[in-house]
Amino acid sequence: MLIKNKIILDENDIPTQWYNIIPELPNPPQPPLNPATSKPLVPDDLAPIFPMELISQEISNESWIDIPEEILDIYKLWRPTPLHRATMLEKALKTPAKIYYKNESVSPAGSHKPNTSIPQAYYNKKTGVKRLTTETGAGQWGSALSLACSLFGLECTIYMVKVSYKQKPYRRSMMESWGGKVIASPSDKTQTGRNIINNDPESPGSLGIAIGEAVEDALSRNDTKYSLGSVLNHVILHQTIIGLETKKQMEISGDYPDIIIGCCGGGSNFAGLSFPFIHDTIKKKTIKELRTLAVEPTACPTLTRGMFAYDYGDSNKLTPLVPMHTLGHDFIPPGIHAGGLRYHGVSPLVSQLLNDKFIKAVAYHQLEVFEAALLFVKTEGIIPAPEAAHAIKAAIDEANKCTEEGKQKIILFGLSGHGHFDMGAYDAYLSGELKDYYLPDEDIQRALKTIDKLTPSSR
Amino acid sequence: MLIKNKIILDENDIPTQWYNIIPELPNPPQPPLNPATSKPLVPDDLAPIFPMELISQEISNESWIDIPEEILDIYKLWRPTPLHRATMLEKALKTPAKIYYKNESVSPAGSHKPNTSIPQAYYNKKTGVKRLTTETGAGQWGSALSLACSLFGLECTIYMVKVSYKQKPYRRSMMESWGGKVIASPSDKTQTGRNIINNDPESPGSLGIAIGEAVEDALSRNDTKYSLGSVLNHVILHQTIIGLETKKQMEISGDYPDIIIGCCGGGSNFAGLSFPFIHDTIKKKTIKELRTLAVEPTACPTLTRGMFAYDYGDSNKLTPLVPMHTLGHDFIPPGIHAGGLRYHGVSPLVSQLLNDKFIKAVAYHQLEVFEAALLFVKTEGIIPAPEAAHAIKAAIDEANKCTEEGKQKIILFGLSGHGHFDMGAYDAYLSGELKDYYLPDEDIQRALKTIDKLTPSSR
Repeated sequence: MLIKNKIILDENDIPTQWYNIIPELPNPPQPPLNPATSKPLVPDDLAPIFPMELISQEISNESWIDIPEEILDIYKLWRPTPLHRATMLEKALKTPAKIYYKNESVSPAGSHKPNTSIPQAYYNKKTGVKRLTTETGAGQWGSALSLACSLFGLECTIYMVKVSYKQKPYRRSMMESWGGKVIASPSDKTQTGRNIINNDPESPGSLGIAIGEAVEDALSRNDTKYSLGSVLNHVILHQTIIGLETKKQMEISGDYPDIIIGCCGGGSNFAGLSFPFIHDTIKKKTIKELRTLAVEPTACPTLTRGMFAYDYGDSNKLTPLVPMHTLGHDFIPPGIHAGGLRYHGVSPLVSQLLNDKFIKAVAYHQLEVFEAALLFVKTEGIIPAPEAAHAIKAAIDEANKCTEEGKQKIILFGLSGHGHFDMGAYDAYLSGELKDYYLPDEDIQRALKTIDKLTPSSR
Repeated sequence: MLIKNKIILDENDIPTQWYNIIPELPNPPQPPLNPATSKPLVPDDLAPIFPMELISQEISNESWIDIPEEILDIYKLWRPTPLHRATMLEKALKTPAKIYYKNESVSPAGSHKPNTSIPQAYYNKKTGVKRLTTETGAGQWGSALSLACSLFGLECTIYMVKVSYKQKPYRRSMMESWGGKVIASPSDKTQTGRNIINNDPESPGSLGIAIGEAVEDALSRNDTKYSLGSVLNHVILHQTIIGLETKKQMEISGDYPDIIIGCCGGGSNFAGLSFPFIHDTIKKKTIKELRTLAVEPTACPTLTRGMFAYDYGDSNKLTPLVPMHTLGHDFIPPGIHAGGLRYHGVSPLVSQLLNDKFIKAVAYHQLEVFEAALLFVKTEGIIPAPEAAHAIKAAIDEANKCTEEGKQKIILFGLSGHGHFDMGAYDAYLSGELKDYYLPDEDIQRALKTIDKLTPSSR
């Protein structure tokens, strides 16, 4: 009589393979380029910063890759995660739609990020690496890597954007509780950091600078590698555990999603949920029956207003050139609270799928996103991260469309993380201090111009 | 080959009845007294602040009480909660013991508290109440009641101890996100508050004052009742869902606990986990085979250094006199970070079971508790609330005893909540700023003297 609120799997039902979408794509993404030579990257180019098993996954042409037992064992700390039916949200919306959400907020770090930090720590540990470096902005990724390093006995150094370091002391404490060493970036620990500080002692830092420091640190020591929390193929590979689990759960529910929605910054959350379903679409050789929506903030409209081009992954031009939708590596988005969606680029895989119309993108302003978040909080009880609230907003809009059209569609969205460390943002919204940012076309055009110079049409 | 990390139940396995230990006790607790008459309380004495169905549960002599379907439906937002095997903690301790923990931190409010806030909101709603008032110190209970009121469409006013209101703005934001109205106490909204402010405009407030304001507020409006988050029989009744679920999960594991451990403030978390197991002990008519440990802070040693007596539940002497272990209603514990354990008294049921040797009590200092918490964080990944860390400390001590004695005992403890809103405490510990408090005997004796005056031995 009662609607089943959650579909819970047994530990034995955790998928034992990750899904690699690349070999099944009609148009696989173009390869990243070595910026010095403009030639496609070879594995050895990446060897100084990544262990070979991750590089192999990055370029793999196998559709299914076994998840080592040691990783499965740690996944079981919080996986399988619940698939909820949003019965109380549906009721509040008076919608005929059925809304499901996959709840990745239950991980110890509070988001989907440990799905990849655990394997990354594992493969590094296996090759004798003693220490990992990374950068973090809002802190979700730094938390996840710190957790993973703690569980595998690795040291972890996190360059945290200085403005976040000051604004979010509790995220820092969380990383430190797992044993991570958190350094405000720019710092005096690296040449990258010292250069910035010399020019501007008051620099608030940026993700680009922090990446530069983390990579430089990793290159400076033989026992150290670097770790990235999104964008790359191997990261997305690991995140497919989300969608693979969800497919099993949807099967139990008896429903199959008509619409899949995920928030999209670097793309790993969105891709992790949707790619295993897009696999079905590819196999059926039709791309029309499943609608897949990547949701981004209007303040950082990479997919909706960016350009598809080769661009750097960081503002310091240290990374390879990758083919992606980008706003330009110099683009600095306004200070919206969904810090995890403030990235100028996006995963090449997500970009390619957008080009090929497997997915669509939509952008929302932060006020309407928080309004949706509050409705979710009051009906479903869970406080979502501002990033995840973008997916909630899109799900509510889709459900309202169903109401208008009188259609009972099946909507699935990803709840990528909880907002326990984002209450300052909720506070700002509730007190009326939050505002929307409107990016004039000329600002976008100015930012995009830096790409043209780097990516001549000959590429 | 892998050890099962978690035991997950299906939604259909959520217990459908709560367990009331009272009728099975060899010595049920003495009744609460009306302080004006010194006579046992009658239901009508409580009717102005509680709905009759909760009063009936408070004095019920039924062993099993059905959980209404509407409550079960909301429980399913997060229940059943996982029972974890702490494999990585065991490994770090090199103990032959098996350690299990019941994870109540997965509720939307982050603790076990919604197990009772949901039924309390439900029964109030059912009788036409429009609004609930309560007090909160650390914020766990205020969060849980705000969540529950949001889900049942009730207004919720929370008097939050002023010092916490200022120190923990994010707990306040959380309550406000669910629609709760949070008022710093003492406030100018009640006579109780105004009296305090007139005497001391800078008063930081106390739980006693906040209870006074919440009760006065509830009494002043016909559409409003008051709600309490621990101590009372009906609260403990609702919390037995924890232990009842755990019993099903332990059965699946093939193990039965030798030792059950819970942190104990007002007692609802400890009782909720342990009473369903004590039921087995009572049925077998032996109290020796199961060891049950209530863990408290040395800074508020109600069970280990308090007196068993009739005392007020609040410092304002507004509540009935209840028979319990108490440090005196005037006792103000030092400012330890486990705010949920800073209560001068404890549930009469827990007190009675301690008297009758069904349970034991142990107290720990906060530094050793945080040391245990950090070991748990680094091995099991989850960041526990400082309250829950008391249980972790005791579990580690018991596991180490097993190592010394070469015995493979089964240890079960309750992880009552996560520490996402307590990172300031972790920060203080990690930076070496945290200290222990030693309560001299004369301080305890002085506090206890206030009880003697109130509870002549004739009672």
